Amino acid sequence: MTTNPLLPMGQRARQASYALLALGAAQKNALLGAIADALGEHEAAILAANEQDMALARDAGLSGAMLDRLLLTPERLAAIRADIGTVIALADPVGVDIDSRLLDNGMRLARRRIPLGVLGVIYEARPNVTVDVAVLALKTGNAAIMRGGKETLHSNRALLAAIHSALNAQDLPTDAVQLINSPDRALVTALLNLDSHIDMVIPRGGAGLHQLCKEQARMPVITGGIGICHMYIDRAADLTRALPLVENAKVQRPTVCNALDTLLVHQAVAAELLPQVAARLGPLGVTFKASPGALTLLGTAAEAAGEGDFDTEWLALVLGVKVVADVNEAIDHIRAHSSEHSESVITEDRRVADQFVAAINSAAVYVNASTRFTDGSQFGLGAEVAVSTQKLHARGPMGLEALTTYKWVGTGDYHARG
Amino acid sequence: MTTNPLLPMGQRARQASYALLALGAAQKNALLGAIADALGEHEAAILAANEQDMALARDAGLSGAMLDRLLLTPERLAAIRADIGTVIALADPVGVDIDSRLLDNGMRLARRRIPLGVLGVIYEARPNVTVDVAVLALKTGNAAIMRGGKETLHSNRALLAAIHSALNAQDLPTDAVQLINSPDRALVTALLNLDSHIDMVIPRGGAGLHQLCKEQARMPVITGGIGICHMYIDRAADLTRALPLVENAKVQRPTVCNALDTLLVHQAVAAELLPQVAARLGPLGVTFKASPGALTLLGTAAEAAGEGDFDTEWLALVLGVKVVADVNEAIDHIRAHSSEHSESVITEDRRVADQFVAAINSAAVYVNASTRFTDGSQFGLGAEVAVSTQKLHARGPMGLEALTTYKWVGTGDYHARG
Repeated sequence: MTTNPLLPMGQRARQASYALLALGAAQKNALLGAIADALGEHEAAILAANEQDMALARDAGLSGAMLDRLLLTPERLAAIRADIGTVIALADPVGVDIDSRLLDNGMRLARRRIPLGVLGVIYEARPNVTVDVAVLALKTGNAAIMRGGKETLHSNRALLAAIHSALNAQDLPTDAVQLINSPDRALVTALLNLDSHIDMVIPRGGAGLHQLCKEQARMPVITGGIGICHMYIDRAADLTRALPLVENAKVQRPTVCNALDTLLVHQAVAAELLPQVAARLGPLGVTFKASPGALTLLGTAAEAAGEGDFDTEWLALVLGVKVVADVNEAIDHIRAHSSEHSESVITEDRRVADQFVAAINSAAVYVNASTRFTDGSQFGLGAEVAVSTQKLHARGPMGLEALTTYKWVGTGDYHARG
Repeated sequence: MTTNPLLPMGQRARQASYALLALGAAQKNALLGAIADALGEHEAAILAANEQDMALARDAGLSGAMLDRLLLTPERLAAIRADIGTVIALADPVGVDIDSRLLDNGMRLARRRIPLGVLGVIYEARPNVTVDVAVLALKTGNAAIMRGGKETLHSNRALLAAIHSALNAQDLPTDAVQLINSPDRALVTALLNLDSHIDMVIPRGGAGLHQLCKEQARMPVITGGIGICHMYIDRAADLTRALPLVENAKVQRPTVCNALDTLLVHQAVAAELLPQVAARLGPLGVTFKASPGALTLLGTAAEAAGEGDFDTEWLALVLGVKVVADVNEAIDHIRAHSSEHSESVITEDRRVADQFVAAINSAAVYVNASTRFTDGSQFGLGAEVAVSTQKLHARGPMGLEALTTYKWVGTGDYHARG
């Protein structure tokens, strides 16, 4: 068995996590404030490093969308710094007793929130994630080992230098935030095998990255981010009010995971609703992949749905449309095709709404609302670490609490078990 | 890519889980009662099948301890049935809203507890686990796919027949509880790859099984069950009262995961305490693996601790003993050697206790109490699914709640995102 090349990094991160464990909320907030200041002081170096990355990316022929994700500007850096202020203002979940009881034998037993320890984060071309993750990890007393995309190497090094100067200024170990500074893909596997020193892995990227983590990680992984989202419009929906929800869910921001992918329509209202959907969304650029019953009702912007179209997260102005017999068929369709991210039922019929909510176990289930609400800020969490579509630990938008665990603390008077 | 041989089983389990989702607490309790009744009606067949397993196990030369784990008797079956009554009496966690709030936009948002869906359980020679897991899964509305040890094949089939007759009697699908009825080890790998249809895997067995699950599972796994447990006796401990705790933690039931493995003693009290430990525990059959400072103080029952002795879960009447300079060295030792199961500090000094509790992040941390309390029934959970030593989802003794997850339920009035 060969030694994991990241083992020293993991050991240093674990040691650093012990130093973070001793910090109170005020000290952690002071650290976050120091990071925001350091990002300001290092601005010229950060922007210069980012320009190096941008030049390499342009030479490599990256798409405009990729280049835009990579770009840092003075305005974007200012926004990143402002976001740190938002995190500072959030309550610290660490140290809170979730519950506490006095056992029959007189021992007090509490469940106390503690940091997870060391987070592993694998992400792609957005350098803002580097700061984002570091700040959320430190706010909750966790160390982090990060692996950004190779396109962002120079930017990430410059951002890390600023973070390290803040850790130094607060007399804290710089090992609290470490970056895997190599594009070698074998190091991703090494990271996923380092279960002795990394307590949780958060992949922030596409389906391929999530699948890789599921297959290779030996520690818990928060998978998510893939949303094949459905809206079912019942025969008892107020169609006039439903139509703006379809538009909102599909058009407002089509490239994100909570955007609508498939519209399911009760057969009794399809003939009335679908021409209106086509008339309203077609001019906005939406095209439709339609089931046989929906095809003719949607007009020229529609084509017949092919195999796999109902299993696709579009991330674009494309909408699958299917006419269903009733809520039962809608539920069956969603169970067969959903990624369990966000689904919505639109109806005035209380029993249909209740049946839908009871039967659909996606991370977020809505009655008479757009799927677009599945978001940490919309849900009032203050910060969003990731959106989980798995079922353990945290579901849907993950706030600061999702970066903590708990321990049982039993306080006795020389209690022995009887 | 070959098709997973367990895929049909997974699909049937998923469908069955939808049927369970529709059950209220009363219906689930009626099912559990029917299972208890069926186990009574099937008693002769179950005991005969168990005798087949016992005969094969004797022929195969299994140890007395293994044979005892495998054995079912009328008394043990009665105890299994009585345990079902205990589970029936527990509150149903499913359907409870964990929290609920009215968002600024008027949408009501709640986090509602739901079943996980389908559980995968891999266990070894105890046939009682078959009933135990089925009952806990069904109580929380989950389907289960179980893979018992090859030694228990006949017993498990007979127990499953009883469970299936109860499911049938309640008009519920027998696919809710399925058993992998083959000793083929490749099916364990197949189970661990079936992340599309199994939401969580619970291994109940030794360290090898847990490691296998960490390496191969694509779905979340609850690892745990391995306890390298420590007790630190501080200079400020009441030694007279501490001594019975050492005995309780080590001797009461040495074969379980919360039994004491390593005793750490402050150097200032070692000369007084350790001869007493030897005098009290030696006659009970305990031998000691001692650090240099402890060796001579423990007398003839002690030998020098070798490499790895402080990383061993003894599960026997053996105790590692180390003299440490102070609580800091105790904390360092525990961080280096603990499996993060259960640790205890014995002291009258409040600051030492607080420092220990703050620094040690094991699943259970005790002040002036035996490590033996880490147990679902001792903690008042009513039932124990497993003991988790990982940090996500659930830690320490896992009760019924650990078999649930939650979904966000948003109820709006045609709310679109602004």
